[in-house]
Amino acid sequence: MIVETQQARFESLDLDCGETLRDVEVAYETYGQLNEDRSNAVLIEHAFTGDAHVAGVDHEGKPGWWANMVGPGKAFDTDHYFVICSNVLGGCRGTTGPASINPATGRPWGLRFPGITISDMVRLQKMLIDRLGIERLLTVTGGSMGGMQALEWAVAYPDSIESCIPIATTARHSAQQIAFNETGRQAIMADPDFAGGDFYGGPPPARGLAVARMVGHITYMSDESMREKFGRRLRNRDQVSFGFDIDFEVESYLRYRGAQFVGRFDANSYLYITKAMDYFDLTAGFPSLAASLERATCRFLVLSFTSDWLYPSYQSQEIVNALRARNHDVTYCELSPNYGHDAFLVDVGEQTEIIRGFLARCLRERRQAGVRA
Amino acid sequence: MIVETQQARFESLDLDCGETLRDVEVAYETYGQLNEDRSNAVLIEHAFTGDAHVAGVDHEGKPGWWANMVGPGKAFDTDHYFVICSNVLGGCRGTTGPASINPATGRPWGLRFPGITISDMVRLQKMLIDRLGIERLLTVTGGSMGGMQALEWAVAYPDSIESCIPIATTARHSAQQIAFNETGRQAIMADPDFAGGDFYGGPPPARGLAVARMVGHITYMSDESMREKFGRRLRNRDQVSFGFDIDFEVESYLRYRGAQFVGRFDANSYLYITKAMDYFDLTAGFPSLAASLERATCRFLVLSFTSDWLYPSYQSQEIVNALRARNHDVTYCELSPNYGHDAFLVDVGEQTEIIRGFLARCLRERRQAGVRA
Repeated sequence: MIVETQQARFESLDLDCGETLRDVEVAYETYGQLNEDRSNAVLIEHAFTGDAHVAGVDHEGKPGWWANMVGPGKAFDTDHYFVICSNVLGGCRGTTGPASINPATGRPWGLRFPGITISDMVRLQKMLIDRLGIERLLTVTGGSMGGMQALEWAVAYPDSIESCIPIATTARHSAQQIAFNETGRQAIMADPDFAGGDFYGGPPPARGLAVARMVGHITYMSDESMREKFGRRLRNRDQVSFGFDIDFEVESYLRYRGAQFVGRFDANSYLYITKAMDYFDLTAGFPSLAASLERATCRFLVLSFTSDWLYPSYQSQEIVNALRARNHDVTYCELSPNYGHDAFLVDVGEQTEIIRGFLARCLRERRQAGVRA
Repeated sequence: MIVETQQARFESLDLDCGETLRDVEVAYETYGQLNEDRSNAVLIEHAFTGDAHVAGVDHEGKPGWWANMVGPGKAFDTDHYFVICSNVLGGCRGTTGPASINPATGRPWGLRFPGITISDMVRLQKMLIDRLGIERLLTVTGGSMGGMQALEWAVAYPDSIESCIPIATTARHSAQQIAFNETGRQAIMADPDFAGGDFYGGPPPARGLAVARMVGHITYMSDESMREKFGRRLRNRDQVSFGFDIDFEVESYLRYRGAQFVGRFDANSYLYITKAMDYFDLTAGFPSLAASLERATCRFLVLSFTSDWLYPSYQSQEIVNALRARNHDVTYCELSPNYGHDAFLVDVGEQTEIIRGFLARCLRERRQAGVRA
């Protein structure tokens, strides 16, 4: 299915930092049909560098980032569910972000863009869902930063979601997670082409952004998956170079991924979105995570991966334990593919069965209870 | 004890890359007294960014990098052992490296310095040990890259060592270990001040080198030790900045460590030494690690740390298993402090008892057998 990215525009958005953003645009895609009682809507949240194009193929033939999970007959079966995915606030794929034009000046925001949070992203999504006429989502789901948004939905808009599927995520960024993000930010800001964020119209901070992405890629894979994929294999040579060209396959991969990223992602979005992740702390203002999650009323399915060392399973288990401490309806599955954090994007088999069953139960019970919204 | 760094000079050193380096200098320090039968000499190998100053204090009052392990009454008891530590080939702390003057041109080598290996480093150390009149070392030890050198000694000069203590190390760099090093190299080479390695006399590639060091520091600590040390504590503020100044303590720590590193380490040494580590593969040219280690004749004590995810215990266990497969005398201890890879520098208690006992046994048995050398 060829999908069109759509745009919604909102007059203003109040932000956690105290500022109000004017003329906010949101890029989103939808798949499948909203049923008559509007009970089958699923909101999928993308991870850090993702976008609204979650499934199908676009006009250039590019498949969606979760096309193996979203489509006819798949985990999020678009023959049954109406799937929505929007680019996050602060992004660079159609939703207002630091590369957008500041209506007050007519020039790109750059670092004059206000600081944003996961909560701000979700507030904007709620406006989009309202605009689409959906009062209650069957589920909100996402992996990594997508999972943070799903958790935020559960506590910010408890009456608006039936269920929540946070995957490979956390209720708050750890010191190590902040540290990796900070390294990426420093790499970008160290690049002279960064120019204080005002690089639009000139060359982007390509080298810094590529280095940031290289660090990211290491954290997305597991030690084991890197060994299986690359090992110590040399790249196009029989022996090492004794120089600083590419010796190993893994070096080639990282350089390629770094360079490729520069063409599709905005360095300022990198800064703003990583900060939003680092700021994310569901426990802020509450005595405990359980107390914070008490606001939620939906059913939960929590997934994590044993080989994920960036968002280790213990972080998902903290969420599960906090939910159980307040008698929430929660199912937890820890899966064992060896892909590392990337597993949520790659490991289709087990995820599909688990999510399919969970969604079917949610839809059935919602119908049995009568559509509340 | 105030120690003096000494210098030794060698006419030439043959390198694995095929080149011969002329006028090679080695910076080294010694502690304690060599006994009459020259049976109590211990060679300590430093890790990546270490130097010859392993113990005591220098003229500026700076303690050695392993002062908690080396000194009177300590694990490497300088009342009993004669301890030697030299700066590695390619380093920037007194031993010939890329910042040294190329005698053929009168200018710093920069990237014209030949590529080096762990084996080259050890070959130069062997020349130093010969110069000091020591035919057989009681032990060779080191953590991380120091452990690689210790292992290399065991197979390259089996008749010259009585025992070997590799700590938190590996017999070959994994794809993930290569990947982290490559990221650091790319960060350095992305800095315009790097100037193709010819930055001497001008500003060094300070920003790139700092980013490389930040990545390194994350890998040296464990998730748990970062949580205990920093958590999500803010730095000198009550609430987040919504900007890109320092919000969190962990950001402040990384930036400080990065900036501090620039003042004491040469960016070209960073490139050369990380490549030497990446090239290290004790199995190269052998059907198995066991076959490679068959050349060794000494006794082994292998140490690793459960919280070390940069050089995980499984890599030490590979060494232990290979040694056992050839009936080598090997003792293995896996220790559980939560410091991560840094544990070998920080965790004094358990290491001290284990190493003290192992060394005493080595010395006793050497004396019982008669000093062979």
